[in-house]
Amino acid sequence: MKITRLAEGISIRRTVAEGTGEQLKAVQEIIRKVRQQGDEALFQYTAKWDGAELKDLRVSQQEIADAVANFDPQLLEDLKEAAENIRGYHESQKQQGYKLEHSNGSYVAQRVSAIESAGLYVPGGTAAYPSSVLMNVIPAQVAGVQRIVLVSPPQKDGRLSDGVLAAAHILGIQEVYKVGGAQAIAALAYGTESIAPVDKITGPGNVFVALAKREVNGDVAIDMIAGPSEIAVLADDTAYADEVAADLLSQAEHDPMASAVLLTVSEKLARETAEEVERQLETLPRHSIARAAIADHGVIYLGETVDELVKSANQLAPEHLEIMMEDAEAVAEKVVHAGAIFIGRYSSEPVGDYFAGTNHVLPTNSTARFSSALSVYDFIKRTSVIHYSEQAWSENEAKIARLARLEGLEGHARAVESRSWKKENQR
Amino acid sequence: MKITRLAEGISIRRTVAEGTGEQLKAVQEIIRKVRQQGDEALFQYTAKWDGAELKDLRVSQQEIADAVANFDPQLLEDLKEAAENIRGYHESQKQQGYKLEHSNGSYVAQRVSAIESAGLYVPGGTAAYPSSVLMNVIPAQVAGVQRIVLVSPPQKDGRLSDGVLAAAHILGIQEVYKVGGAQAIAALAYGTESIAPVDKITGPGNVFVALAKREVNGDVAIDMIAGPSEIAVLADDTAYADEVAADLLSQAEHDPMASAVLLTVSEKLARETAEEVERQLETLPRHSIARAAIADHGVIYLGETVDELVKSANQLAPEHLEIMMEDAEAVAEKVVHAGAIFIGRYSSEPVGDYFAGTNHVLPTNSTARFSSALSVYDFIKRTSVIHYSEQAWSENEAKIARLARLEGLEGHARAVESRSWKKENQR
Repeated sequence: MKITRLAEGISIRRTVAEGTGEQLKAVQEIIRKVRQQGDEALFQYTAKWDGAELKDLRVSQQEIADAVANFDPQLLEDLKEAAENIRGYHESQKQQGYKLEHSNGSYVAQRVSAIESAGLYVPGGTAAYPSSVLMNVIPAQVAGVQRIVLVSPPQKDGRLSDGVLAAAHILGIQEVYKVGGAQAIAALAYGTESIAPVDKITGPGNVFVALAKREVNGDVAIDMIAGPSEIAVLADDTAYADEVAADLLSQAEHDPMASAVLLTVSEKLARETAEEVERQLETLPRHSIARAAIADHGVIYLGETVDELVKSANQLAPEHLEIMMEDAEAVAEKVVHAGAIFIGRYSSEPVGDYFAGTNHVLPTNSTARFSSALSVYDFIKRTSVIHYSEQAWSENEAKIARLARLEGLEGHARAVESRSWKKENQR
Repeated sequence: MKITRLAEGISIRRTVAEGTGEQLKAVQEIIRKVRQQGDEALFQYTAKWDGAELKDLRVSQQEIADAVANFDPQLLEDLKEAAENIRGYHESQKQQGYKLEHSNGSYVAQRVSAIESAGLYVPGGTAAYPSSVLMNVIPAQVAGVQRIVLVSPPQKDGRLSDGVLAAAHILGIQEVYKVGGAQAIAALAYGTESIAPVDKITGPGNVFVALAKREVNGDVAIDMIAGPSEIAVLADDTAYADEVAADLLSQAEHDPMASAVLLTVSEKLARETAEEVERQLETLPRHSIARAAIADHGVIYLGETVDELVKSANQLAPEHLEIMMEDAEAVAEKVVHAGAIFIGRYSSEPVGDYFAGTNHVLPTNSTARFSSALSVYDFIKRTSVIHYSEQAWSENEAKIARLARLEGLEGHARAVESRSWKKENQR
């Protein structure tokens, strides 16, 4: 892992897989076909790309029961405990509406309500993560979303992974479909005979899924399109190089495009961490992915002062920021841009990925400057309510009409004034 | 205005101007050139499209003072009062963070902070609405955004409208630039010599502005891309046809693509409203726009029951919904999908556009099913904070490692376990 002086500046990476023009055309064709042919198109695409000949898209209750029975009971307990923690954290995000009443009899209010339905995309194969099911479904449930649907591409034998179904079972999700790719996104957005459309689609996916989400965006809501995983570690001499290295590799193993950065004032830690990364890579199962990530997007920055480190961390606005320093909490107070901050030696990043309760769907690619973790707020909407009494209207009618005419909108002015037309005409 | 039976169903319109391929190419070229050439490109485009030869992009304090001096003092007072109402409504949207502490010494928390900078696009010409300045800037100010920038295309004489500058002055906004179109969006997103980049861009604009916002989305945040204005009125025999008609026309005058719908159980009101719309169109200054909107997207639906009306209103999920019925408040309780609800005879839609305090930037095109008015929430971000104590870690280490291995992420498991390596090795 290369070590460089922070004074020379950090480069902020901006790379989001956008797909090629050909991929986009393919996705548009898939969406068109699903809208026209419904389930028939889903069956065809699933046979073609997943190699599964299905009779039913929907996972039966028996299949879910079987998956749970197959699943390691200890892991089921672990998932349940994680789900409880996640629910606990997200419960505090519930929002209330408000109402402001005025003495003239008018009021303005904000109502908060859940969106009605949400669909979660779960990737197939080795990326079928039960933890993603928890992280996407629980905020929707806490928000009060009535209908929550899961879609995931089947294996060749026509089944979904036990872990995903076990996670769905724990959360009480019963509507699960065996369909993936752009066709699954099209089905969620526009509906087919088997799958009723949803209002919002969340969850990670490959480039076809990402392109399809962009295409349907606006007809339904989508979550952000996540980029490769990122970790930055702020550390001083109190940190242990083997732990820092292990944490850096935990993100590097996600994706060759993942980034892993150490920011430190300690030359010793910098040198030892670089060595530890090499040493640990030797026995890491996903070493080829992690090695590529470290080579291309792994840097150890040596700074002069802690303030300089913090400034750089804010510039990076990383998805995950760990602080392993003597006064970690005080340093954390100075960080304003990060998806999630992990404070202290024992707050290793996977603690947040799986268990602590915070959401692991986090802003990447410096977007933590302006965006946030997936949350209950993503599954609610707010409706403004306005009531003007006769008194409120008569006090303000002339002002509103003047403002409308200032903007050349005579019809607006007349609408407000129309309430007095009948008085003037002695009706 | 055509009258039709509700039993035959309502059609939900889905039309958002997406621009042509050629327009998109032009926009991409503009963005590329602004990124390369900075201010120079802005001056060139402004000369070409706005016909204004500028020496400075930034509006001087003298220009702002002159605009305020030119501006009708009564209107200045009206704008100030509107601004106070808007600020009052949005103050209740301020969010607090939270922290959940556990007995094992761990905690999870959510921090709330404002984004650092925001740029508001204000269209030129007759669409340079001072009310838009209030509606976009005030939520950002209440959120605590430190730097708020306005951009707007200049008139041929190189000036911006007095109304826009007066609104900026009222709000204390001093950073205003004379630049419009896609080039303004590019400047806000990537910065030039004169204009430092912002984190979020909001505000309405033409198709070039909308395309440019889509292009820069992800590098900066953008607000929703608004469609044409919409109004639906739920009314019974207690409503007055002339008032209903005036309110329908207030939205129809915005855009030939605007929609204006009356849902009623009263045949008399339906018939009289149709007549009133025709009558009022005759003297409306923007009659050609409004007439086109009414012809193409204006419908009076006659229903059998109030429940049927409400169901249809929820299906429409209109931007603005007026309820002029005997028990308007009770009916309003049953509406779940609308951008804003106006309750009772005196709550004419322009009351919300200008004055009541709610935001007039509202979801169109049925997106009220899943999205909301512009608000303080759009200018904040949330950071998750995780602290695990040694005890919390040792209680949960094994569970987290098991969950990571379930997902095939050995590096994650090792990261969590790395905290015990030294104990095992007697370091």
